[in-house]
Amino acid sequence: MRVLGVDPGLTRCGLGVVDGGTGRTVRAVAVDVVRTPPDADLSVRLLGISDAVERWLDRYKPEAVAVERVFAQHNVRTAMGTAQAGGVVALAAAKRGLPVVFHTPSEVKAAVTGSGRADKAQVTGMVMRLLGLEVKPHPADAADALALAICHLWREPMRVRLAEAEARAAEIAKNHKARLAAAAKQAKTQGAAR
Amino acid sequence: MRVLGVDPGLTRCGLGVVDGGTGRTVRAVAVDVVRTPPDADLSVRLLGISDAVERWLDRYKPEAVAVERVFAQHNVRTAMGTAQAGGVVALAAAKRGLPVVFHTPSEVKAAVTGSGRADKAQVTGMVMRLLGLEVKPHPADAADALALAICHLWREPMRVRLAEAEARAAEIAKNHKARLAAAAKQAKTQGAAR
Repeated sequence: MRVLGVDPGLTRCGLGVVDGGTGRTVRAVAVDVVRTPPDADLSVRLLGISDAVERWLDRYKPEAVAVERVFAQHNVRTAMGTAQAGGVVALAAAKRGLPVVFHTPSEVKAAVTGSGRADKAQVTGMVMRLLGLEVKPHPADAADALALAICHLWREPMRVRLAEAEARAAEIAKNHKARLAAAAKQAKTQGAAR
Repeated sequence: MRVLGVDPGLTRCGLGVVDGGTGRTVRAVAVDVVRTPPDADLSVRLLGISDAVERWLDRYKPEAVAVERVFAQHNVRTAMGTAQAGGVVALAAAKRGLPVVFHTPSEVKAAVTGSGRADKAQVTGMVMRLLGLEVKPHPADAADALALAICHLWREPMRVRLAEAEARAAEIAKNHKARLAAAAKQAKTQGAAR
């Protein structure tokens, strides 16, 4: 399974491709940061990000795309730009029929370091160790993109199994309810026949 | 000048095309609301909005796109979805080389009703009057999209003139500074020659 992780942003957008092997083995395929000029029109910046992501989808052919879920926390203006960038990334994937999953920063930190409150340095350190990188991915957005891809590779099978279990439970509950209704109907018919 | 106004949103995305004539005359060309199912994946919803906007750009061939600028105010979750929808709309326009301008809700209200704090009913009423509509555009997102297009038609010439005036003023200031520097240099050279 190959995943493209994206840390969306207008000024810096981190892109990282990771292959998942047996067990928890992971291998870095590519990592980079796309930049768009802060003085350009918003729509032109979004086009720059969209074009870059499309090139990566063509070149690396990932089977899924993992995007960081944005929260309006500190700076609302920045958060809006980040959300817009994440939107065009999700669109590029949807146009190719690829599944897109959004992961929160704490899900990513927890998946990679074991703690949802790990700091940037811990995340970068674990990403380097897990992928056997000798050079620190720079800037932090590049390391975050790789961490997102790893998070997706490790969380997705669990998420799918959970969804399947939930669907099975719903099916069982539905059948049980149908049997109850049938039994009640039969009891009523027998009562009327007596 | 023909403008596509877009009131972005995942659940309801308002689209309105308006032609501007001489003076302040405006004419409605088309108006509709695109809906995407709330239980669909975010990326699939964004694709639905993107496809609809691309169809409108192909069919109506506007010369500019006006999008409502989103603020994270009441509901952060909704605001993020709205920002992402706005992002894919801006992208569709940028792909065709069309200018995209974002207007705040108060700019739109002020342009259409004269007051930045007008309520929905006032905006809808003025949109109907300005465009000579006998039936109220429904839902409100449709009227908002028309209001955005009108706002753009009326504000844009002023914005362009203002930008030109600022550029001229900057040019004059630059030339003045250069003349001052030249005069200072000449005075220094003459002083040294004495």
